[in-house]
Amino acid sequence: MIHRIAILGASGYTGAELVRLIATHPQMRITALSGDRKAGMAMREVFPFLRHLDLPPLQRIEEIDFSQVDLCFCALPHATSQAVIATLPRDLRIVDLSADFRLRDPAAYERWYGKPHAAPDLQAEAVYGLTEFYRPQIAAARLVAGTGCNAATGQYALRPLIAAGVIDLDRIVIDLKAGVSGAGRSLKENLLHAELSEGTHAYSPGGTHRHLGEFDQEFSLVAGRPVAVQFTPHLSPMNRGILATVYVDGDPARVHEVLFETYAREPFLEVLPFGALPSTRDIRGSNFCHIGVVGDRVPGRALVVAVLDNLTKGSSGQAIQNANLMLGIDETTGLMLAPVFP
Amino acid sequence: MIHRIAILGASGYTGAELVRLIATHPQMRITALSGDRKAGMAMREVFPFLRHLDLPPLQRIEEIDFSQVDLCFCALPHATSQAVIATLPRDLRIVDLSADFRLRDPAAYERWYGKPHAAPDLQAEAVYGLTEFYRPQIAAARLVAGTGCNAATGQYALRPLIAAGVIDLDRIVIDLKAGVSGAGRSLKENLLHAELSEGTHAYSPGGTHRHLGEFDQEFSLVAGRPVAVQFTPHLSPMNRGILATVYVDGDPARVHEVLFETYAREPFLEVLPFGALPSTRDIRGSNFCHIGVVGDRVPGRALVVAVLDNLTKGSSGQAIQNANLMLGIDETTGLMLAPVFP
Amino acid sequence: MIHRIAILGASGYTGAELVRLIATHPQMRITALSGDRKAGMAMREVFPFLRHLDLPPLQRIEEIDFSQVDLCFCALPHATSQAVIATLPRDLRIVDLSADFRLRDPAAYERWYGKPHAAPDLQAEAVYGLTEFYRPQIAAARLVAGTGCNAATGQYALRPLIAAGVIDLDRIVIDLKAGVSGAGRSLKENLLHAELSEGTHAYSPGGTHRHLGEFDQEFSLVAGRPVAVQFTPHLSPMNRGILATVYVDGDPARVHEVLFETYAREPFLEVLPFGALPSTRDIRGSNFCHIGVVGDRVPGRALVVAVLDNLTKGSSGQAIQNANLMLGIDETTGLMLAPVFP
Amino acid sequence: MIHRIAILGASGYTGAELVRLIATHPQMRITALSGDRKAGMAMREVFPFLRHLDLPPLQRIEEIDFSQVDLCFCALPHATSQAVIATLPRDLRIVDLSADFRLRDPAAYERWYGKPHAAPDLQAEAVYGLTEFYRPQIAAARLVAGTGCNAATGQYALRPLIAAGVIDLDRIVIDLKAGVSGAGRSLKENLLHAELSEGTHAYSPGGTHRHLGEFDQEFSLVAGRPVAVQFTPHLSPMNRGILATVYVDGDPARVHEVLFETYAREPFLEVLPFGALPSTRDIRGSNFCHIGVVGDRVPGRALVVAVLDNLTKGSSGQAIQNANLMLGIDETTGLMLAPVFP
Repeated sequence: MIHRIAILGASGYTGAELVRLIATHPQMRITALSGDRKAGMAMREVFPFLRHLDLPPLQRIEEIDFSQVDLCFCALPHATSQAVIATLPRDLRIVDLSADFRLRDPAAYERWYGKPHAAPDLQAEAVYGLTEFYRPQIAAARLVAGTGCNAATGQYALRPLIAAGVIDLDRIVIDLKAGVSGAGRSLKENLLHAELSEGTHAYSPGGTHRHLGEFDQEFSLVAGRPVAVQFTPHLSPMNRGILATVYVDGDPARVHEVLFETYAREPFLEVLPFGALPSTRDIRGSNFCHIGVVGDRVPGRALVVAVLDNLTKGSSGQAIQNANLMLGIDETTGLMLAPVFP
Repeated sequence: MIHRIAILGASGYTGAELVRLIATHPQMRITALSGDRKAGMAMREVFPFLRHLDLPPLQRIEEIDFSQVDLCFCALPHATSQAVIATLPRDLRIVDLSADFRLRDPAAYERWYGKPHAAPDLQAEAVYGLTEFYRPQIAAARLVAGTGCNAATGQYALRPLIAAGVIDLDRIVIDLKAGVSGAGRSLKENLLHAELSEGTHAYSPGGTHRHLGEFDQEFSLVAGRPVAVQFTPHLSPMNRGILATVYVDGDPARVHEVLFETYAREPFLEVLPFGALPSTRDIRGSNFCHIGVVGDRVPGRALVVAVLDNLTKGSSGQAIQNANLMLGIDETTGLMLAPVFP
Repeated sequence: MIHRIAILGASGYTGAELVRLIATHPQMRITALSGDRKAGMAMREVFPFLRHLDLPPLQRIEEIDFSQVDLCFCALPHATSQAVIATLPRDLRIVDLSADFRLRDPAAYERWYGKPHAAPDLQAEAVYGLTEFYRPQIAAARLVAGTGCNAATGQYALRPLIAAGVIDLDRIVIDLKAGVSGAGRSLKENLLHAELSEGTHAYSPGGTHRHLGEFDQEFSLVAGRPVAVQFTPHLSPMNRGILATVYVDGDPARVHEVLFETYAREPFLEVLPFGALPSTRDIRGSNFCHIGVVGDRVPGRALVVAVLDNLTKGSSGQAIQNANLMLGIDETTGLMLAPVFP
Repeated sequence: MIHRIAILGASGYTGAELVRLIATHPQMRITALSGDRKAGMAMREVFPFLRHLDLPPLQRIEEIDFSQVDLCFCALPHATSQAVIATLPRDLRIVDLSADFRLRDPAAYERWYGKPHAAPDLQAEAVYGLTEFYRPQIAAARLVAGTGCNAATGQYALRPLIAAGVIDLDRIVIDLKAGVSGAGRSLKENLLHAELSEGTHAYSPGGTHRHLGEFDQEFSLVAGRPVAVQFTPHLSPMNRGILATVYVDGDPARVHEVLFETYAREPFLEVLPFGALPSTRDIRGSNFCHIGVVGDRVPGRALVVAVLDNLTKGSSGQAIQNANLMLGIDETTGLMLAPVFP
């Protein structure tokens, strides 16, 4: 059975990545695309890399007949997403890739995003989309909120450790290095090739990055008490990929064991042998997440290093994985593409 | 039906790219891998990006039972390939990715490669693997010689024009910009990140690059007279991708028309609208080749710009396309992966 | 003696490069800086790499007391420059880095830039700033027009050959690869790291790039007859550097000899031994231009490859070289900085 | 007065960087260069970026007349350096850039480098070359040991804080991102452009990197008790530059204040305003180190971020700064080159 798919916000990187992945998905067919200021254009004009595909043209959202859509991906900007989704049919299955429905608590949303939520009823309905930890809820959900790409990376490294009680909850440092595509197709000076290609730098440091809202919500839930990690993202001169170096207080062998056992049967999560370290070059363009664990020379401390592709496992790949669940399809369908190396 | 595949020389980039593509090919299964000095190792040790796959370990070639192999890809170094293939069963279907069987004329081989061919009988048997122009021969072949990646790019731009007689055969300049993965996983100073990342330079200039042997052979064959193009390859600070800027004397509109018509029904060759130009960013990781044509302000002169991914359409993707034909499978099977952008 | 320097348009890349070079120039001191929309800011806020320097704040142009300025660099955008310079004191020495005064013929200016020149009297007064070929005129000039960076590169390769009559004037192809800083600090999608880092592409092809106006003017002047070259610039995934591959009809040995002799005593122009090729990595951040010559296998054809740093020899370094001449300082003062490699 | 300089090991990156910097140093002249396997070659053959300089040819070390040398830089590989320096005249001033004389304790040397020191008497004589903290000793020294580039970065961030007693000595994490030139011109797979350009990864994690020997020695000395930091270096896809993100327990305002005051009069150390963060793009090719401090949302915790160019302030620039002191020259001579941006 082929499911009819709409993508709203198809003119950004996550929208384009959805199209890339669905292009070889055997049970999805794109029947509608929206693209804000680019309505009327063909996708091949906006994204020449898609020119071999027979795709519908970019439309305005209000032109789409949602009665002919089985599932809708929303790759719209933050804040726009909640306004748009509030206008869509209430029985339409939606996977949202924005930040709008990630935080369950309206007060937390307001604190991190600076204004009240415009669709609090939808916010209550949304299921947090970290697939491996919310499978049954996602399968039953109408509205799934894709996670932040940094938030996903940190959680893959930490959730099992917090759940198992093997690390000190007050001593967690996440030092993260992210490729530039995570910033989207936005025109900013620090994203220019001339500025970034030799310009590693930290940003949103010291507890100001919005993905901390997700860390706080999820880690506190898992721990059953408030958990506040330290989190410093850095921009690294590469396109795709996130590498999170996580410093924890805990027994390194036990840390490895917990992660290894938790993910032993997961199709997309690969825990390396103890002492081996992952690289962003090994997951590019794929839905895989590689995790390594090393012991520090300081006894009782360990490093967990996790890598994933921000556009795939961190965003559009995750979205399709969730959509597969929602549509009753095998979860890995269309997502077993091997990474592109070199 | 699933065909059993062996890959010799699986520890290099083209070998790894074959594994990447076959990983989602519905009618091929890898049953044997050889890897020279890395025999005994698992592929995930040599190429961690493949660690999610269940693959046979790297063996020595002599350990492989070729009676259990339906088709063998040879991704061995030049010169090694001819020696190895000479020892393989004479009824084994082989797609060779080296330079060893590209030139039909033993004298030409000796001139370009500096020594006599070690397997002249096989050389005579081999079919040149530029799929779109040798389909029936490839489908019937036992041994197919994959083209040079630069040679493929230049031919896609020029063959139809030479065949149609619309350009001056004595005035052809191919200025080519190639990503570094085309040089393989070789340890050379100019391939180091520190040296290449801001270091565009020409190499093998003035008629010394070996792929000229292929241009000479094929273009002269098509033209029915000797054709000697000018060809200057450059190393560009990127990983994948070749962009060939081809300067020809001919009517630009007619040049576009000939290319457009020649490739109108080809699944992997996309001729852009007249005046539009392709970019390497739009074909990365895929088997597509994009071609653009522009007229010069000097009347009667045109530019043809062709891009493809050297490891895919220029090498391993082409090899699988040829193997599909040899096995009687639909030619595009496993190869419709969309490019990875950004 | 220390000369007092003003820089108009100091908030762009060429303005910043002027500051970088003057920082260690023993006979220049920056006494005024203008920066359009950033007036009131300190340079260290706009360009943190300059934070160790004691610089005047960015002002509005009208706030500058030009009676206290010995020489003024104009690094303003095209079109803005002519309007601003028309308002400056008529006895102020000016080196303009924009395109506004490069073309002597008002009709040519209008053709290439799409509108009439706003200061035709100044246009008549301006001297073309290709130092090595206009030394006496520059030394005596009040207003010098810096060349285009691509235009400089092509001219270093070709002017001596045209002057010596050793190449066919109707068969000149300039295939140029340029780093991204040449496009300035402009916010465009194709300059984003995510789009460019693996995205080599041609732009302004077929005779549409404005630097052709300079080629036409200068080459025709040198030849004493109209010369129309073919010119295709490409954007290459690097920050600094231009590599021009120039295809000519002429005797390779003679081509090399003419270039070698012409530049034998030039401090910044290095002609490599016959057959050797330059790389952009070897001139980065410096005022040097390296030139190589190779013979093609097609008899009577040669390749000339020239490299320079677009921001230095192609723009701000050239500007200071010209300013040195105008101020009666040794031409190389402050410009002998070695390239930065790797 | 011009001092006569020899450089041993001039065919590596740090040797080349010494030549680059001395090229515009007004009081040093290179009179001898050694280059191991490249003896007999001209520097312009080994490093074409230096081709404008008039340099002595590469010799064997034993061919150099050290009686005509005022100061010798040793840029030889680790272990080689101690063997060579033991054979040099005992009154020759030497700045060593290798790791051989950084650790004062022979047992510590043996532990980190895996074999006994071959010149323990010289080891005792050597002064640790972190200029700002060892000025009088360096000025009086005959043999100065340049620091590790990572070790310098971490110490600039931490030494004043440890000395002032404002941070918890048992809770220090140094997460470091380094450009690839720090690995030298070595031919290793992970340094290839194809592997590194999208391949951020950690290396020598968990307390195994040799620069920890320096951290331990120096921090313990300053603290007056053993200090063992956590240190994880990462390779980042850039050529030059190190960014160290240092996590400390301490009052952020006090941390900033201590750093600001300690470095207030230092010519090369720039402490940014509280809350501002540095980038590697802003120190490339220069001898400057930028340091930023941010408070974390977790009370009592702070981030210190330090950047420098590994080849300049982290190695060859530092070496010249030390040599200036040893020769009685102003410490900043030849080192005020502005960073190269973009």
